[in-house]
Amino acid sequence: MLLVAPVDQAVRQQLTDELGQVESLFVQELQCPLECVNRLVAHVERYRGKRLRPLLVLVAGMASSPDGSTLTDDHRALATVVEMVHMATLVHDDILDEADVRRGGPTVNTLRGNETAVMLGDYMISHAYHLCSSMDNQQIARTVAHTTNVVCEGELLQLANRENWELDEEVYYQIIDRKTASLCGTCCKLAAVINDQPQKVQDALDNYGRNLGVAFQIIDDLLDLTGDEDTVGKSTGRDLTKGKLTLPLIHFRINAPQEQRDTFIKLLSSQAVNNDDSVSNQIRKMVTDFGSVQFASERASELIAQAQQALLVLPDSPARKLLHEMAQAVLTRQF
Amino acid sequence: MLLVAPVDQAVRQQLTDELGQVESLFVQELQCPLECVNRLVAHVERYRGKRLRPLLVLVAGMASSPDGSTLTDDHRALATVVEMVHMATLVHDDILDEADVRRGGPTVNTLRGNETAVMLGDYMISHAYHLCSSMDNQQIARTVAHTTNVVCEGELLQLANRENWELDEEVYYQIIDRKTASLCGTCCKLAAVINDQPQKVQDALDNYGRNLGVAFQIIDDLLDLTGDEDTVGKSTGRDLTKGKLTLPLIHFRINAPQEQRDTFIKLLSSQAVNNDDSVSNQIRKMVTDFGSVQFASERASELIAQAQQALLVLPDSPARKLLHEMAQAVLTRQF
Repeated sequence: MLLVAPVDQAVRQQLTDELGQVESLFVQELQCPLECVNRLVAHVERYRGKRLRPLLVLVAGMASSPDGSTLTDDHRALATVVEMVHMATLVHDDILDEADVRRGGPTVNTLRGNETAVMLGDYMISHAYHLCSSMDNQQIARTVAHTTNVVCEGELLQLANRENWELDEEVYYQIIDRKTASLCGTCCKLAAVINDQPQKVQDALDNYGRNLGVAFQIIDDLLDLTGDEDTVGKSTGRDLTKGKLTLPLIHFRINAPQEQRDTFIKLLSSQAVNNDDSVSNQIRKMVTDFGSVQFASERASELIAQAQQALLVLPDSPARKLLHEMAQAVLTRQF
Repeated sequence: MLLVAPVDQAVRQQLTDELGQVESLFVQELQCPLECVNRLVAHVERYRGKRLRPLLVLVAGMASSPDGSTLTDDHRALATVVEMVHMATLVHDDILDEADVRRGGPTVNTLRGNETAVMLGDYMISHAYHLCSSMDNQQIARTVAHTTNVVCEGELLQLANRENWELDEEVYYQIIDRKTASLCGTCCKLAAVINDQPQKVQDALDNYGRNLGVAFQIIDDLLDLTGDEDTVGKSTGRDLTKGKLTLPLIHFRINAPQEQRDTFIKLLSSQAVNNDDSVSNQIRKMVTDFGSVQFASERASELIAQAQQALLVLPDSPARKLLHEMAQAVLTRQF
């Protein structure tokens, strides 16, 4: 994300330094007297990719600071916390998704079994809360815990709708707003809370983060449907094999002619039972030809425009400009 | 636990009322706007059994209160938090253990798949931290999160030692001290922290809880080895099929004559691959006849005596007496 968006040279250097500090804190907090645990943590550290969530904290923290560029230790701690929460959800998601590739390497569940993956995810969540509860402002821990409540609701709602071919847009948005957007909103909002910003600024940054988060998930779902595994860096086509309806599929199911819809649902049902490349290619072609992929892309663009609009509550600064560009980069990313 | 120990009538009534309040708070905190989530939570509520951990908070809170019987809202909140943490670990443990029976009913993973069990456990842990972070005294949230760090370390250490037939007593105690005793210690210690008790009392109650917790786990392991599934209320013989060495097995492996030890390890290896009742019966008979079950029972008795000794720092009261008797009941429980 950092490298995708064009960034002012001074801001880039500052963020590189800040991310380095976040990384050190991450490693330091997860350090364990048991070597068997450290080996597992070292494996998961390889998962680190875009670092979207810590970047949201850092850049929103800069943009909402009095001089537009100063960060505090609480911002660094919060950036570490949200990365731990996110990494824990990746480890647990891989169990959910039965994925065997993540960031080009084998997943923990493939290497060491579901049991270890469950516990390692728990270990990371626990450390995230532990670090959170060390911050003076208790609102941070409470908001982070509330957010993880909502993230879990989103995951459970998604699981309850597996192979529900009638899933509509409204429930789809309920799912991704909870499972993805809520944490992105919290990253940005709490960055402003740490800076003692008024409610209006907190809300605007929450709004920015949530809209960006929904768009991010729509694009994530599109990459899973149409992307290439080597470029994306994780297993693709998983939503189809897991019976997860995403925006382009929902659009097609609602708007395509009846006959095509019937064929489509048969293909979806078959792909959810037997993973077959020719079937997934057929589904991909149908929704692309009908314009449903285009529809989902446009929806993501609209959300990004709304996210960018929300930023205008902040004074102009290189950091605000970067938030604008990070949002834009969500639309163009290939991974 | 409550019903096993002989209890003063007034204390029994008070605890019944207090547990009722804890139960209400538990249900209220886990309440969700999504019906699919509420249905899952309702299923897990059936798991509630001995309620050892909330009872430890409540009775230690009474015993360390100025008049020996008064509790605060923070005690009730903490009792709810530790029960949520414990229930979450049960849900995740059932995935670890591939268990299909818990409290006489099917487990979440059997009914709804591993994915749902992982997320439901996460949902409960998250709510536990959320409730924790609402308490004024930040030491509580920090200590609870530190304890869950340690619990996860214990689970990971146990997983790393699966089918390690050379496991010794020292590492066995490291495992169970972390995965079970640490939370029991924290329940008792924080009950005293809430009462603003001096460090000496906090440490003594921590000591009580930890020794009780280690004894509890030794007995739990003995029940898994020698108990009857209907009486115990959960799948038994799981440690053998999961290649987990527990205290009587370790004692036998170290002390039995060489020839018996070789046969024993062959049986353990075979049982970890193919679950076979006749093999587990043979193992059970060997360790019982050699006196290794007796050895483990005696070790649990010694720990309970140490736990009871630690209580003498507190003034005499019906609640202190009940802590003494709860410890005793750990040794005699059949479930």
